[in-house]
Amino acid sequence: MKAKIIVMPKKTVLDPQGKTVKHALESIHFKGIKDVRIGKFLEIELEGGNKAALQKQIDEACHKLLSNPVIEDYTFEIQ
Amino acid sequence: MKAKIIVMPKKTVLDPQGKTVKHALESIHFKGIKDVRIGKFLEIELEGGNKAALQKQIDEACHKLLSNPVIEDYTFEIQ
Repeated sequence: MKAKIIVMPKKTVLDPQGKTVKHALESIHFKGIKDVRIGKFLEIELEGGNKAALQKQIDEACHKLLSNPVIEDYTFEIQ
Repeated sequence: MKAKIIVMPKKTVLDPQGKTVKHALESIHFKGIKDVRIGKFLEIELEGGNKAALQKQIDEACHKLLSNPVIEDYTFEIQ
């Protein structure tokens, strides 16, 4: 089983890395960009087991370790 | 329109950040992890336009700017 986790800066938080990439894209003549936001993508390969239990465990891991809940949001799916 | 881009280290490339997170997860008693790989997630908000043209533009941006094709793979979708 695989857990795919996306950790993004909250909408209300400035994303300087995103701003920099936006400018860089514009400098190579990529037009029509409204906004760029950059986050992390984690792929966790799991040995398997009960999906509901894994979901709980991944949620806890995201909250405790993989994201900073003050400035970041996370979403995940288990496949 | 929104482009969602995932940039990951190639399968053949070591991912020390992933290894560190794997150990950290194990240290908070998360068992049954086979592997962790960490990449970037980019969300680009676009003004819209021709989807095929945007697809070509995003692909070029990924190749030239957003990833290092020597050590990273990218996938994207436009919604």
